[in-house]
Amino acid sequence: MFKKRDNIKEVEEGKYLEPKFNENGLIPVITTDFKTGDILMHGYMNDEALKKTIETKEAHYWSRSRKSIWRKGQISGFQQIVKKIKIDDDQDAVWLSVDIGNGASCHVGYRSCFYRSIPLGKIKNTEELEIKFEEKMKIFDPKKVYKDEPNPTKL
Amino acid sequence: MFKKRDNIKEVEEGKYLEPKFNENGLIPVITTDFKTGDILMHGYMNDEALKKTIETKEAHYWSRSRKSIWRKGQISGFQQIVKKIKIDDDQDAVWLSVDIGNGASCHVGYRSCFYRSIPLGKIKNTEELEIKFEEKMKIFDPKKVYKDEPNPTKL
Repeated sequence: MFKKRDNIKEVEEGKYLEPKFNENGLIPVITTDFKTGDILMHGYMNDEALKKTIETKEAHYWSRSRKSIWRKGQISGFQQIVKKIKIDDDQDAVWLSVDIGNGASCHVGYRSCFYRSIPLGKIKNTEELEIKFEEKMKIFDPKKVYKDEPNPTKL
Repeated sequence: MFKKRDNIKEVEEGKYLEPKFNENGLIPVITTDFKTGDILMHGYMNDEALKKTIETKEAHYWSRSRKSIWRKGQISGFQQIVKKIKIDDDQDAVWLSVDIGNGASCHVGYRSCFYRSIPLGKIKNTEELEIKFEEKMKIFDPKKVYKDEPNPTKL
């Protein structure tokens, strides 16, 4: 769909979008809150989701659990209005800066998916490495919002 | 190496680190500048790189081009001192917040790998979609810093 990648100099410093999709046809996407700069989520897009996001200014992703394109908020109502899209040096990662108002981005109920931190320093036992909750308050109750939808988290 | 993932509730809301590595043994990593909040790069870690990063507080990645663990800055000198590490809801993505001083993170020479934006709105021709340079000044000259090292960008 997009311009063919046939020259590294063009990919890195050329003027055309030449995104690289991985062996599953996906490109990783980082989504940040345009007001606070916080990272909200890390997801994936296929070529169609990238095109739809650019054209509609509403974030669309590829759901690996449902195996389909997914307009963020289609079930939860928490849509993401795209303010800016950037692409990285080798064009294999996308950065979306979005407006989510007072909403949330995480299916567990938190504003950001990154609500836990990993303590730094010498690890005693990697199999029992305790992480720390940084956000304590959920924005919504997932049971009320998602009802019987299957949980996208996979083991 | 880390705790086994055997329960979705534990992965999402438990207190242990249970990272998910993909079919290639890697987890995606987003790296931001702890001072400005800007995204610097998107990379990958294997379990050993994640452990080394936590323990040494210096960012280590898995180089997909060199197929080895890589301490950021080992060639360029632009190391990343880790200030905070977060993990997402389903523990399949990592966020590093790092100090790079006045250095750079991008092998092309820019401070951030995300130096180009994609214009929003209706696309005339996806095969000739022009992107826009947002950073005009390089921090360093890659030819001087990397000399004969192979370019990590792959087509």
